[in-house]
Amino acid sequence: MNPQVAGLGQCSLDILGQVGCYPELDQKAELNSLLVQGGGPVATALVTLARLGVSVRMIGAVGDDDFGLKIRQGLLTEKVDCTHLVQVPGASSQVAFIAVDADGHRNIFWHRGTAQLAVPKTFQAENFESVRILHLDGLHLESAIAAARLAQEQKVITVLDAGTFRSGMEALLPLIDHLVVSEKFACQFIKRDDPEAALKCLSVYGARAVTVTLGTAGSVSLSADGFVFRQTAFRVKVVDTTGCGDVFHGGYIYGLLQNWPLPKTVRFATACAAFKTRALGGRTAIPTLTEVEGFLKDYEEC
Amino acid sequence: MNPQVAGLGQCSLDILGQVGCYPELDQKAELNSLLVQGGGPVATALVTLARLGVSVRMIGAVGDDDFGLKIRQGLLTEKVDCTHLVQVPGASSQVAFIAVDADGHRNIFWHRGTAQLAVPKTFQAENFESVRILHLDGLHLESAIAAARLAQEQKVITVLDAGTFRSGMEALLPLIDHLVVSEKFACQFIKRDDPEAALKCLSVYGARAVTVTLGTAGSVSLSADGFVFRQTAFRVKVVDTTGCGDVFHGGYIYGLLQNWPLPKTVRFATACAAFKTRALGGRTAIPTLTEVEGFLKDYEEC
Repeated sequence: MNPQVAGLGQCSLDILGQVGCYPELDQKAELNSLLVQGGGPVATALVTLARLGVSVRMIGAVGDDDFGLKIRQGLLTEKVDCTHLVQVPGASSQVAFIAVDADGHRNIFWHRGTAQLAVPKTFQAENFESVRILHLDGLHLESAIAAARLAQEQKVITVLDAGTFRSGMEALLPLIDHLVVSEKFACQFIKRDDPEAALKCLSVYGARAVTVTLGTAGSVSLSADGFVFRQTAFRVKVVDTTGCGDVFHGGYIYGLLQNWPLPKTVRFATACAAFKTRALGGRTAIPTLTEVEGFLKDYEEC
Repeated sequence: MNPQVAGLGQCSLDILGQVGCYPELDQKAELNSLLVQGGGPVATALVTLARLGVSVRMIGAVGDDDFGLKIRQGLLTEKVDCTHLVQVPGASSQVAFIAVDADGHRNIFWHRGTAQLAVPKTFQAENFESVRILHLDGLHLESAIAAARLAQEQKVITVLDAGTFRSGMEALLPLIDHLVVSEKFACQFIKRDDPEAALKCLSVYGARAVTVTLGTAGSVSLSADGFVFRQTAFRVKVVDTTGCGDVFHGGYIYGLLQNWPLPKTVRFATACAAFKTRALGGRTAIPTLTEVEGFLKDYEEC
């Protein structure tokens, strides 16, 4: 196993339920269906890459509880290398309950768990031999900064999935080559609702490319040469948007590995995310490479 | 093990999280704490009785999943006999996610699972030798009706916890000796918001006593001789009301076993429920007999 991509960050256990309507306070809502599945931004991006045929490694931490076992099993089933997925004795794993309504909208309740993520000692220079890209999220900030520094020294490309702005993240941004952030993060970052303005502010930190994902409105990107472009979302019947951003990141990293130009990379990532929305759960409907390629070919021929 | 009380009905796995405020649609709420614990109306009533020193047996069904294992373990830890807790191959267990806010109010999302509950063949006359009371809820209606018929033949007292009105329950009501229902059930049953009127309508089915629980407003009861009385709730700092009704039923059944008059039984049940609200989870703060007796003694001396 020589992973091309390593991901350091969140891995969670998602408990997803489909609900007719949300309950009032002190009321009950019966779920039509229930699904227990691994989740988390970095972990699900790696699963996406694995389905696309890329060898990947997860660097993360789980507790020594049942949820942690399920998280690990879920990743191993998807052929994600878990050598650096640490099980912390006495700690609890990250878990999320996600209520999805008939229109695919969600309420997410999540607990970060108590398993602390540290950059493993074994995650040294020699471990970067095969790794071309390091994928990060912003929750375990100190570990992410340490890993990004190591990556930079080894000329490993860094990608950041930033969903929520957290204080201290400014220290991570200069270490990132590809910033792919949520609309929420972008607006929190510049304190106003203007994704294009956020692109410019974020690009100051030196990334080669910055993208803001906009849900059903697609995304807007800025390349290092100052070229701004928008990608519309593909129209699909949405069952559940859980993990859409995570899968987008997986598709984006796939494009980087192919050395595709940014528009082609973003277009491919957008298609991956569209496939994902067809079923309940962040990972259920992640496509294979054949599926995405076939879809994009058909779409272009329309 | 010669159980004095058998309970047939729901046993669930509760995943409880404390939340600052409820998330907007398509937003996330981070949970301050997370607790995984067994729940379910009948199962938690039996746990209450076990803590009070009564020998009890659970008749129910779980799936052969991790949640089912946890449900069983939780009951065994509380000394609930699980000889008749069936594990159904290939089925999923009942599970609930409960978001509790800072004021102790809740949103409940639950899935009934696919494990079908049948009256076990072994649950025949000879099994009633030691059983004096059968406790039921309304979800697994056919099984509840069959069990209540068997109980009636054997002069076993039947108690029903009815939280939500479901069609067909009218067939169960004539088989019940003690009806202890929620305000929601009472209002659904008579199609108007009048618990006292509901008492009278429900008493027509022949129960020896009917009680409607009213949350912070206490409860109102009607005995077979037509005596109506109200019991106020004890004032406590509420952390979580999950399982309050279940624990009330446990305390009520304890009173029946002592042959206490109805007002004393309801007062004891009310105290048990008050104790329960002090901590997150339906079972965490269920009191021992010494605790309830001490509390009631102190309260009366005030």
